[in-house]
Amino acid sequence: MDFSKLDGLIPAVIQDADTSEVLMVGFMNEQALADTRRTGYATFFSRSRNRLWMKGETSGNRLQVLDVLVDCDEDTVVLKVKRLGDGNVCHTGERSCFYRRLSEIER
Amino acid sequence: MDFSKLDGLIPAVIQDADTSEVLMVGFMNEQALADTRRTGYATFFSRSRNRLWMKGETSGNRLQVLDVLVDCDEDTVVLKVKRLGDGNVCHTGERSCFYRRLSEIER
Repeated sequence: MDFSKLDGLIPAVIQDADTSEVLMVGFMNEQALADTRRTGYATFFSRSRNRLWMKGETSGNRLQVLDVLVDCDEDTVVLKVKRLGDGNVCHTGERSCFYRRLSEIER
Repeated sequence: MDFSKLDGLIPAVIQDADTSEVLMVGFMNEQALADTRRTGYATFFSRSRNRLWMKGETSGNRLQVLDVLVDCDEDTVVLKVKRLGDGNVCHTGERSCFYRRLSEIER
């Protein structure tokens, strides 16, 4: 994998393995990707908190990783996941972070 | 939209509107997103070439945008697209850039 393009980070697209819905996009550094594969649960690098975080570590809404795909340039991954806990991935309580159209947030 | 987190760029996940397959991930600056919406075809900002590029501008394999979703933090978009041209999105000739498992690229 090529972590050089975004200061050590790559985008990780989280896709529901059953429905193919895109649930969220996070960033991973090399350690986050390694931890994801070692534990089987999606782990990201938080840019705002400057630390690793396993998604759902407090809420219990972990993301069980069933498959990891890599793109042609080896600088992005897609994770096929099973939603655990209450199944709502977004911190707003929605199932997916992508619950709005762009046109809806504009005035 | 918040373009401040990645030096003026946001990730744009390109998803096939029919199959829900993730086809590619690119980056957009504010102008690329505006051009995408104005033209109806996915337009990105190339970090390596330091310029805007409409996907398929040379190959003809443009991506017709049917819907644009935005995430909770307003720093990422998902574009639901129709594949035009020969329908192969990746420059390798594959339909999707995510045609390999991560385990396949490791020795």
